Amino acid sequence: MKRLLTHARILTMKKGDSPVRDGYLLMNGDTIAQVGEGNPPSDWDEVTDMKGRLILPGFINTHGHAAMTLLRGYADDLPLQTWLEDKMWPIEGKFGPRQVKWGTSLAVIEMIRGGTTCFADMYDHMEEVARVVEETGIRASLCRGVIGLGNEAEREAKRRESVRFVRDWDGQADGRISAMMAPHAPYTCPPAYIEAIVADAAEANVPIHIHLSETRAEVEQNVKDYGLRPVEHLRRLGVFDRPALVAHAVHVTKEEIGILAEHGVKVSHNPGSNLKLGSGIAPVPTMLKRGLRPSLGTDSAASNNNLDMLEEIRLAALIHKGAHMDPEAVPAETALEMGTLYGAESLFWDHEIGTLEPGKKADLISLDLDGAHMQPPHDLLSHVVYAAGSADVQDVFVNGRPLMRNRELLTIDEERVKFEAKEAYREVAP
Amino acid sequence: MKRLLTHARILTMKKGDSPVRDGYLLMNGDTIAQVGEGNPPSDWDEVTDMKGRLILPGFINTHGHAAMTLLRGYADDLPLQTWLEDKMWPIEGKFGPRQVKWGTSLAVIEMIRGGTTCFADMYDHMEEVARVVEETGIRASLCRGVIGLGNEAEREAKRRESVRFVRDWDGQADGRISAMMAPHAPYTCPPAYIEAIVADAAEANVPIHIHLSETRAEVEQNVKDYGLRPVEHLRRLGVFDRPALVAHAVHVTKEEIGILAEHGVKVSHNPGSNLKLGSGIAPVPTMLKRGLRPSLGTDSAASNNNLDMLEEIRLAALIHKGAHMDPEAVPAETALEMGTLYGAESLFWDHEIGTLEPGKKADLISLDLDGAHMQPPHDLLSHVVYAAGSADVQDVFVNGRPLMRNRELLTIDEERVKFEAKEAYREVAP
Ligand SMILES: [Zn+2]
Ligand SMILES: [Zn+2]
Repeated sequence: MKRLLTHARILTMKKGDSPVRDGYLLMNGDTIAQVGEGNPPSDWDEVTDMKGRLILPGFINTHGHAAMTLLRGYADDLPLQTWLEDKMWPIEGKFGPRQVKWGTSLAVIEMIRGGTTCFADMYDHMEEVARVVEETGIRASLCRGVIGLGNEAEREAKRRESVRFVRDWDGQADGRISAMMAPHAPYTCPPAYIEAIVADAAEANVPIHIHLSETRAEVEQNVKDYGLRPVEHLRRLGVFDRPALVAHAVHVTKEEIGILAEHGVKVSHNPGSNLKLGSGIAPVPTMLKRGLRPSLGTDSAASNNNLDMLEEIRLAALIHKGAHMDPEAVPAETALEMGTLYGAESLFWDHEIGTLEPGKKADLISLDLDGAHMQPPHDLLSHVVYAAGSADVQDVFVNGRPLMRNRELLTIDEERVKFEAKEAYREVAP
Repeated sequence: MKRLLTHARILTMKKGDSPVRDGYLLMNGDTIAQVGEGNPPSDWDEVTDMKGRLILPGFINTHGHAAMTLLRGYADDLPLQTWLEDKMWPIEGKFGPRQVKWGTSLAVIEMIRGGTTCFADMYDHMEEVARVVEETGIRASLCRGVIGLGNEAEREAKRRESVRFVRDWDGQADGRISAMMAPHAPYTCPPAYIEAIVADAAEANVPIHIHLSETRAEVEQNVKDYGLRPVEHLRRLGVFDRPALVAHAVHVTKEEIGILAEHGVKVSHNPGSNLKLGSGIAPVPTMLKRGLRPSLGTDSAASNNNLDMLEEIRLAALIHKGAHMDPEAVPAETALEMGTLYGAESLFWDHEIGTLEPGKKADLISLDLDGAHMQPPHDLLSHVVYAAGSADVQDVFVNGRPLMRNRELLTIDEERVKFEAKEAYREVAP
């Protein structure tokens, strides 16, 4: 099936490409066949006029816990330990497969509606998440997040479950699912347990996804417990000898950023969640200077409280300018790369997604350019980063398949999901 | 004309009121007659079922330069002086009445669509702005911003123009327009000129609206030029003996915040613009502790780059938590008060707007609660502040008159404005 999009503005996000003013994009099956300006090709099965729309790569959300949409607004504006221990953990402890299934489905609706074509997810009951991904047509990098605080038998059961999940799901759903191994964090996993998971990841040949230095308190605790800051601690445990993605990295020194850069570690910057929980502001400008290419994540809807990648892109462009009193800190183009290409790199998927170029998978979105808030059309990249809203997203394609057209969802029953999500929440409500 | 809204969720924003779950609101002409829960009154001329919608006071944008929507995305991510001197001032110098008329009209469309019912505007050709306000039905606090850098004759002409504008427009458009006097800033107006404007304001009995301590550099320059930081400088010039609204107040010390609080000075916090221009992060938590009630402004679309008050409310709730590593820094409820009631106070209009209560003007909006990103409905105030988007705004009333219903604009020709705004820009484009 050859789908042709014509008369569009296009931002390919490929380095060096200029914005296309009157362009076309041809998909052949799940792949981008051609992107260009001027006369479109004549060999197609379906053609859509995209006048007044901007085509760009889908957004890539590199850190989150999708099922926690059920807890959006359940508790806000509390000190982190109260929020976690008194609010989140007790109710999450009651989550079963139904909560994960419907919470994730709700998240996928919100993500597609906001232009996200690929998301990373770290949670429990991951086969439920994988099935939602399989059925809805979105792309995802999934991992069973394991907390190593239980007894030996529990810990080993979780490791086996993670390994089994990787074996069952890595590469499934026409290649739309990839898998990682995920020791939750240095402060929730004993060192030997992390080492065992690193060995599992090596054997399964998948990357590692882990929380790192989100709060100042956990860094201090790590120093107390192990005599090392978390980056050096994980380095010694061999985590960075594997392809690895660390989430947050708020409290990292220049030296630690140097270590991450040397080892090619990927970073997921989660500005909304870090601000809301009072964790701090990650040193993104320093990361960029040291050659890291941080991507963007929403974290969960319980600490954000939405899954809006345009908002994260905007926050990434804004907050570092303010915090460093430097209007050049994170330029608009860099922020948009963080939400697209750097996201693909962070999920080890940049050979297939992250830019619009022939041979890559057709994961792309369109934005309406007609809103009053998008006038006049001086600089469309600037408008995407600084002015657009998620409701401007019109069309979403993943692997060449339309998931949303003119804001109508095509692969998921939105009303049913909203109903079931409310029911699933009621089953665990206090 | 009695308009009744039924079966709505309602946040009145009146201190001590609980959220209403199944409520009604009755407007009588331009005024709120009743707000309540349970059985609605039976005496009405028009009734609208608002099931699935949340009614709250309209947002109040307390600082901006509406006509500059024409320059949205015209120049970004530059050092402040380059941005101002090489980009903004040369093209703004070419702005005439047509640019102000159509730029402001574009801004008003965007503001109504985003739930703003009242805005403050400081610019030139203000009679054009006033006419747009008069015709579109929105509410505004307007002032001719005067820069005192020209020769004596120019300066005096501008003062006379400001006074004339106040005389002609204060209280006009059924009371929807109020006026202020506006010396642009301490660094653009000589001290004697500011004193003369203070005298004008006293004579006309209107408040003063002025930029204050937006950047570190201007504070340092003030100390160099006058031996005083800007707050003490303005205090000595008598600015704070009048009702006064200061925009930005980013670089103010605890002592300066104390002076502002003592004099009952109103503050417009502009988080988006302050971040984007790299100006810094205003000490809002300290202001709140000292009893100031800062409101929110977008500043112009050239430095934001939209006029989305929900975004400013969210930024106000998020950035201070992150910057101070304190998840309780600016609670969600405070952020929403900043965007509504504190806005009314900042424009000296809280006797008429800012909350939903009988006797106040019927300036109110509704938000759709049905979106996936608004589920589950745990805490609607939290959802407004942390999850909603401006496209969720459905209905907008000002003085009891509907300006937008189900996202359809009723008082302004959107397509014509977008066309004319592009033309108006072309006339001054470099
Ligand atoms: Zn996380
Ligand atoms: Zn201003």
